[in-house]
Amino acid sequence: MLFLDLFGTVVFAISGALVACRKGMDVFGAFVLAIVTAMGGGTVRDLQLGTDIFWMQQPIYLWIAVAAAIITLAMRTRIESKQQWLLLADALGLAAFTVIGVDKALSFECAPIVAVVMGVLTGAGGGLIRDVLAGQSPMIFYRDIYATAIIAGAGIYQLLLYVQIPVGISAIICMAVVLGMRLVALRRSLSLPSFLL
Amino acid sequence: MLFLDLFGTVVFAISGALVACRKGMDVFGAFVLAIVTAMGGGTVRDLQLGTDIFWMQQPIYLWIAVAAAIITLAMRTRIESKQQWLLLADALGLAAFTVIGVDKALSFECAPIVAVVMGVLTGAGGGLIRDVLAGQSPMIFYRDIYATAIIAGAGIYQLLLYVQIPVGISAIICMAVVLGMRLVALRRSLSLPSFLL
Amino acid sequence: MLFLDLFGTVVFAISGALVACRKGMDVFGAFVLAIVTAMGGGTVRDLQLGTDIFWMQQPIYLWIAVAAAIITLAMRTRIESKQQWLLLADALGLAAFTVIGVDKALSFECAPIVAVVMGVLTGAGGGLIRDVLAGQSPMIFYRDIYATAIIAGAGIYQLLLYVQIPVGISAIICMAVVLGMRLVALRRSLSLPSFLL
Repeated sequence: MLFLDLFGTVVFAISGALVACRKGMDVFGAFVLAIVTAMGGGTVRDLQLGTDIFWMQQPIYLWIAVAAAIITLAMRTRIESKQQWLLLADALGLAAFTVIGVDKALSFECAPIVAVVMGVLTGAGGGLIRDVLAGQSPMIFYRDIYATAIIAGAGIYQLLLYVQIPVGISAIICMAVVLGMRLVALRRSLSLPSFLL
Repeated sequence: MLFLDLFGTVVFAISGALVACRKGMDVFGAFVLAIVTAMGGGTVRDLQLGTDIFWMQQPIYLWIAVAAAIITLAMRTRIESKQQWLLLADALGLAAFTVIGVDKALSFECAPIVAVVMGVLTGAGGGLIRDVLAGQSPMIFYRDIYATAIIAGAGIYQLLLYVQIPVGISAIICMAVVLGMRLVALRRSLSLPSFLL
Repeated sequence: MLFLDLFGTVVFAISGALVACRKGMDVFGAFVLAIVTAMGGGTVRDLQLGTDIFWMQQPIYLWIAVAAAIITLAMRTRIESKQQWLLLADALGLAAFTVIGVDKALSFECAPIVAVVMGVLTGAGGGLIRDVLAGQSPMIFYRDIYATAIIAGAGIYQLLLYVQIPVGISAIICMAVVLGMRLVALRRSLSLPSFLL
């Protein structure tokens, strides 16, 4: 799980640095977007839970995000051309962050719907802040099945825990649900309906 | 008061969901904007007061906002056509949120000006975050008398409490001030002056 | 130090009020941008440190920012024409806020890189929130050497403290570094490189 956590941090940091490159930001902008994309969601989650911010206790997360940003800047055209792999890696990171967010919320005895919100925040909050800082419409409000996969995974995870499935198995099923929904949505270009006015 | 609190939550959630529809967001975007508009201001207030976030203790607020969003999506053209009623309801919700924000700040022994800031945050903070997430200029910085009504109400409320007027009567007068200023501003299209450069 | 702190608050508040004028906001918008630019960075820093927000304990900061905004609105064309002085004052405020941010982080026993982040937040966070609220691209991600000066100053400051240089001398050297880098960057129009995609 720790490995998947660090993996998600790297993948999200890369996505932040790439957005900074596309927007013509300087090196500092790339560092900030990498850090914010990878750690922004968890930061808001920890603030709302009233607990210590995870990266202030373990600054290794900051170093990882900065390192990922530097490598991304150096190899940006190469990385940009691997869109398929980036999307797959992003789905895997998303699955891991969902489990982490729900687990942390449950350890604070949050209500089930609050734990879902914390899963969404952990998985999608960083990308949302990235988009606001980069001055672009938050992709998550328009683009295919993304948050929906987190909500489904977080719901099923809590259901499995409720019926006494061991936590390890429940977590793997939760991640499979998130990953599976993301991959199906990507392959078929599925989207949620929108209700125009 | 609890009734007015829930009423304000519903009205603000509707306003968030309507913005999401206008911007062509999907269902998830509508849920997030509804939740953020209704609860974002109170969340920032509670974070700054260093207390537990109100909706994490009482998740019923989350359910109400989501339910209001669903109903709004289903009846969006009908609701959209009732602009007059929406503005009236919004003014009433604003009045209630002002009292709630000031009360909470005073219960933490905040200074008077800090209590005014908390009233403004509670009443107008959610709409501000909604506008930032939707990528539109925050209406509150441009549009007629809105925050000013909160500031006036919050100031008069504290003045009345200071001269020992019972809290119930003070709260009603405060809400009447906010509501009255909003309605006069709407009817006469009053605005604050701006100082162009 | 207290003097420099209040000086920085005034300068940053002026910069917020000027942006509000340029964007055609009303008086309330000018107040909010002044407050947010001057105190937004320190607020996010204090939230993340899990400590009381500084201006809730000492509301004088709020009054100073509001007073600075009023004066700016009244004398806006005069102030706007003094760009050279504004940039110099901003650099001085930035230097002071860097020391304050790092000091506060170290008093909570943060790791060195976390203290650098807190210095950057204190110095540059307010301007970042100002730009997001005003709907403009955050200058700090594009414009010349700004955050870089904070990072260098915060790094050198901690290095000096680590080798047992007295805190007063270390702080003055830190501020000289930030100020010097800003002035050289302004005079020569230096910028960080960006990596376009």
